[in-house]
Amino acid sequence: MKNLLLLFLLILLFVIPGYSQVERSANLQVNADRIEKRIFELAEFGKNERGEGYRVAYSDGDLAGRAYFINLMQQAGLEVRIDAAGNIIGRREGSDPNLKPIAFGSHIDMVPNGGNYDGAYGAITALEIIEVLNENKHLTRHPLEVLVFQNEEGGLVGSRAMTGNLKKEALDQLSVSGLSIREGIVKIGGDPERLEEAVRSPGDLTAFLEIHIEQSKVLEGRGIDVAIVEGIVGIEDWDITVEGIANHAGSTPMNDRQDALIAASKLVLAVNEVVNSFQGFQVGSVGKMKVEPGAPNVIPGRVEMSLQMRDLSTEKIMLMFSAIEERARQIEIETGTSITFIHSNLSNAPKMASKEIQDKMIEAAATLGISHMKMQSGAGHDVQEMAALGPIGLVFIPSKDGISHNPLEFSSKADMEKGANLMLRTVLLLDKQKPPFIQK
Amino acid sequence: MKNLLLLFLLILLFVIPGYSQVERSANLQVNADRIEKRIFELAEFGKNERGEGYRVAYSDGDLAGRAYFINLMQQAGLEVRIDAAGNIIGRREGSDPNLKPIAFGSHIDMVPNGGNYDGAYGAITALEIIEVLNENKHLTRHPLEVLVFQNEEGGLVGSRAMTGNLKKEALDQLSVSGLSIREGIVKIGGDPERLEEAVRSPGDLTAFLEIHIEQSKVLEGRGIDVAIVEGIVGIEDWDITVEGIANHAGSTPMNDRQDALIAASKLVLAVNEVVNSFQGFQVGSVGKMKVEPGAPNVIPGRVEMSLQMRDLSTEKIMLMFSAIEERARQIEIETGTSITFIHSNLSNAPKMASKEIQDKMIEAAATLGISHMKMQSGAGHDVQEMAALGPIGLVFIPSKDGISHNPLEFSSKADMEKGANLMLRTVLLLDKQKPPFIQK
Repeated sequence: MKNLLLLFLLILLFVIPGYSQVERSANLQVNADRIEKRIFELAEFGKNERGEGYRVAYSDGDLAGRAYFINLMQQAGLEVRIDAAGNIIGRREGSDPNLKPIAFGSHIDMVPNGGNYDGAYGAITALEIIEVLNENKHLTRHPLEVLVFQNEEGGLVGSRAMTGNLKKEALDQLSVSGLSIREGIVKIGGDPERLEEAVRSPGDLTAFLEIHIEQSKVLEGRGIDVAIVEGIVGIEDWDITVEGIANHAGSTPMNDRQDALIAASKLVLAVNEVVNSFQGFQVGSVGKMKVEPGAPNVIPGRVEMSLQMRDLSTEKIMLMFSAIEERARQIEIETGTSITFIHSNLSNAPKMASKEIQDKMIEAAATLGISHMKMQSGAGHDVQEMAALGPIGLVFIPSKDGISHNPLEFSSKADMEKGANLMLRTVLLLDKQKPPFIQK
Repeated sequence: MKNLLLLFLLILLFVIPGYSQVERSANLQVNADRIEKRIFELAEFGKNERGEGYRVAYSDGDLAGRAYFINLMQQAGLEVRIDAAGNIIGRREGSDPNLKPIAFGSHIDMVPNGGNYDGAYGAITALEIIEVLNENKHLTRHPLEVLVFQNEEGGLVGSRAMTGNLKKEALDQLSVSGLSIREGIVKIGGDPERLEEAVRSPGDLTAFLEIHIEQSKVLEGRGIDVAIVEGIVGIEDWDITVEGIANHAGSTPMNDRQDALIAASKLVLAVNEVVNSFQGFQVGSVGKMKVEPGAPNVIPGRVEMSLQMRDLSTEKIMLMFSAIEERARQIEIETGTSITFIHSNLSNAPKMASKEIQDKMIEAAATLGISHMKMQSGAGHDVQEMAALGPIGLVFIPSKDGISHNPLEFSSKADMEKGANLMLRTVLLLDKQKPPFIQK
């Protein structure tokens, strides 16, 4: 009897509070008006004389936007610090001091003349999760961290610093703001001489989640609410040189030409055909081309061009490249030119999202009645760097007409609401799980 | 009997001297050693520190080369003057003061880092004709003129001035030398304020003849001594703009792209196919291409490119253009881009060589045992401007490997000799003919 009473008390003490907490959390909802209001407020910082966004990393607009956001984070009760790399980190303690934090966030810098949703939506949603938990007095077991990475648009600078992947030489590179990265880090309150203090270790985070606008129109086109990202594609780059013979465009007969642009044009089309001939979501592009000598009355003697291919499978990229190389050999023969490929050493390996986190997101979507599809991310995001520290998850919401990096960038309040609720619910599901539950 | 004696005297007075003069002239031969020696001597002027030719119009090298050549002309007994446009004109009177001059010549300026035969061979051959006539005390019926046009490489500047086709605005254009054309004309002894004094009238010349290196390797390839040019091709230029949509090369699916470079590549190949699908010697080239924004990770949104077509028939050029335009309409549909063509107003009409002069050249070649073929000139030459003043003729000699505008430019002494003898013989045949014998 005494034992039974003890059992009953134990049930009262542990099981019911936990049960009711999760039950209550199922009803937690983000405040979409607040999200959109903050999107608009943040957009005011760094506008230029034409009213276009200019919150380029390390610019005065960026600094003002960061100050605005830090203030909001502090008002939400987060313990805010700026790490040595200039990243903003806001922490909310959990009930279990032994657990590693669940982190989420994005960035608030933008490209010149950029849009107001890229990055900003993810950062504001991260803060919104904290606000809703506060308002509902919901204490998570895990500590939570809101991460706002600096200079994402300049090449994932802040997140690379956090994983130790930012090379010392990079500090001397000029950023779009006109300042070197080193000067920029000083300006935003970091300390480039103590960059190693910003580096975190694998296993430091239970998970890192990011939500972002899609930057394409697949979701919009299919009328689907969110994309649960399977991974961030790997990127392989090549520099291609086509050598022909520059000659007089008047006196050189058609059948006596070694026209580098004819060969380059065939190669551009071959790249397109090869990439389209494979199954899947891979992409391949020639984005850059320089034609020499470049006069209407001279047959081009040399063309320099870029080749970039992206896919979740590096093996597939290399298979496509082999097929392209084979086509190039044919084109050399057809055109009397020579074509060389130099593989860039700046390649990015694909980064896979955690299967378990994807499953939690699917579960959350089902609970919330949010339609979803799987997708791969063709664009790079800070979350791919964080994969070095722990399991990652990434969600996309629709962006109107697929436009991004442009003042016309837009996502609806309703879409932002669904995405943010999915993120909130995913955080709560992850928090509920007993560690170590997640594998990368 | 008295009448018979008179007839005999008349025969002695008119027929025999004329007959014997032509008979003697049949044996006149140029001095090939002297021609080559002068090619090498002229090449010494304007060499830069690397030993490359830099006799760009209005440069110090050009000035020195002109002084050298003027001196040779004077030594050959020519009455030399520099017209208001800066052209060098050397005159040798004929026996009949009522006849208009037979003129011949070329230019001695060169492109930067150019070759030693382009232009120079024609000017030196013109002088050689005078030298041989002097040495053989051969007085022609027609006056003869050696014309050395200034700044041919800068766009037939001197010959355009002589026909009144050099626009006032052109004087302010910067030449390759760094001087404006106006400053250049002053430097070489002309007077840009009195340019109209350099203009000559249609009918002022009995004929103008030019001999030039082929600048291609058709003669060399076929082992033929000279080309008798049927005409200088017309040139039509278009500026093409391809508008697609610049987008993220990672996040934009392959089937959702409006890639301006894919469209431009298809168009480059379409131009080549269309031009090759016509009968004849026409050429068509895309020599210039600018791809925007021009980054490996951005799908090209805009391509600007040139289209240049040349043929003896403007009608054929326009037929080819129509076919290209039709292909462009298909490419627009295939690629979701828009393609616009703007026809340049700087088009050059074809200029036909005089049939009679071509016949004289063929006759001369037959007499001299020189093999010949008909050809069209794909490159522009001063002779095309002179067509406005009278009948024209143009001869090409082989150039090794077809190389021109390059220090490697080379024509053998034997080939130069054949060409110069053909020119000399043609001048003598034209001189023999009673005017008005020639029709354009």
